[in-house]
Amino acid sequence: MTAPAPPAELFVARMDVRWRDLDAFNHVNNATYLTYLEEARLQWLRHVPGPWFDERSMPVLAASTLNYRSPIAWPGQLAIALYCTRLGTTSLTLAHRIVDAQDSTRLYSDGQVVMVWMDPTSGKPVALPQAIRDAAAGA
Amino acid sequence: MTAPAPPAELFVARMDVRWRDLDAFNHVNNATYLTYLEEARLQWLRHVPGPWFDERSMPVLAASTLNYRSPIAWPGQLAIALYCTRLGTTSLTLAHRIVDAQDSTRLYSDGQVVMVWMDPTSGKPVALPQAIRDAAAGA
Amino acid sequence: MTAPAPPAELFVARMDVRWRDLDAFNHVNNATYLTYLEEARLQWLRHVPGPWFDERSMPVLAASTLNYRSPIAWPGQLAIALYCTRLGTTSLTLAHRIVDAQDSTRLYSDGQVVMVWMDPTSGKPVALPQAIRDAAAGA
Amino acid sequence: MTAPAPPAELFVARMDVRWRDLDAFNHVNNATYLTYLEEARLQWLRHVPGPWFDERSMPVLAASTLNYRSPIAWPGQLAIALYCTRLGTTSLTLAHRIVDAQDSTRLYSDGQVVMVWMDPTSGKPVALPQAIRDAAAGA
Repeated sequence: MTAPAPPAELFVARMDVRWRDLDAFNHVNNATYLTYLEEARLQWLRHVPGPWFDERSMPVLAASTLNYRSPIAWPGQLAIALYCTRLGTTSLTLAHRIVDAQDSTRLYSDGQVVMVWMDPTSGKPVALPQAIRDAAAGA
Repeated sequence: MTAPAPPAELFVARMDVRWRDLDAFNHVNNATYLTYLEEARLQWLRHVPGPWFDERSMPVLAASTLNYRSPIAWPGQLAIALYCTRLGTTSLTLAHRIVDAQDSTRLYSDGQVVMVWMDPTSGKPVALPQAIRDAAAGA
Repeated sequence: MTAPAPPAELFVARMDVRWRDLDAFNHVNNATYLTYLEEARLQWLRHVPGPWFDERSMPVLAASTLNYRSPIAWPGQLAIALYCTRLGTTSLTLAHRIVDAQDSTRLYSDGQVVMVWMDPTSGKPVALPQAIRDAAAGA
Repeated sequence: MTAPAPPAELFVARMDVRWRDLDAFNHVNNATYLTYLEEARLQWLRHVPGPWFDERSMPVLAASTLNYRSPIAWPGQLAIALYCTRLGTTSLTLAHRIVDAQDSTRLYSDGQVVMVWMDPTSGKPVALPQAIRDAAAGA
């Protein structure tokens, strides 16, 4: 899989690597990349000007695809850029690039996740909130 | 993405969900699925009869693709089946199915990871160890 | 600190060590011991015959004290025994011993936590639920 | 237990709370406090001017005592202050205060850990490295 053709960035989050993110191979564990992406995604959502979440409509992760391009060491600081590469009726695709905060040519991971908005009581997909549609399209 | 056409299972690992695997939405966190897969993969590797790891050749994760099919609750017990769907020169693809240990029709996740054997000093891919080739093909 | 004078065990939980519980020193990370204790505690609470939790009364951790007696390796299986060493009006003290499930003379950790029942809206301590009082005293 | 009588601070680390630090009760999980302390401790050790670690002498945690004074929410930023309250021959006691980075009167946790320097091959305690002794005493 190649890196996503770069649409405009939606959001960039900075994040400090914690020593506990390392595993017994002394690199950041593969699962922790998803924690970094989740943190970046939630920081983006907090900046969306308008409601994106209520009892009848909340986002869930439907799929994730990650490429591990090079190992991440501790200590370190990351910059995580998010891009909207598809805007559907009930879901969107958020691509990402995780790079070193001090050297943006150093790519640690690219890939994407699919988020679907669901009604938690029915378990059915619902239309994307307008605030999300605007935020994702306007970027 | 559809579930992998089922080749023979390589290995099935049983795993207990821990309460700490839940996040603030009260479901198992998306990153934890990769921890479950890692545990299953390492248990499989421990059962490979023959050396699969030395200072010049060790496995790293190159990519992961997960579909989140339904939320996982606590308490619970999982059965994680691994399948080899591609056997390359320096890498292999391990597909998975995570189901409920008490009800195998309840699918929580499918998907796959790509593992590459690398020389950690040079950072270059190396040929798959024969023990891995045999274990993955013979299954 | 010495190990608690052994009152009768309240509960024993079995737990599998996960590879991800290891840190870059290749031993189970010190914070993960608290996750093991939390899992054991919640399994005990689930077995209490009677209500121990509602909107006006829920347990929170007030303090923890752990002694790290020897490092825990992967793979491994643990047995975590809980003891009630103090039963107060609004709180109780739960001592623990974490030993190897295959060799109970191998002590990994002892210590204790203090749990307080609180009203989450007022933030004030409330009387221990009768079901907890009975379960902790009767053991 | 009361907060430690305040000797001079050894070190203060700033740390961002991650959403994944929350558990299903929507507060930072009790085990994560030890991860915050570990990160602060390792950042302090990295700033010690002189060797504090070799193959014959490395620090391990012998005990931890934490008081949970108030719940930590996400998002948030913490300031973690470390104090040396005891300097032994082979071990030292590091007290801590975790406060809100924006409001230092908001105390989240106090307590202490005991670190022992060990020879990993023999498993016996060894004398504290001089660099540690100087750093801990000079503060």
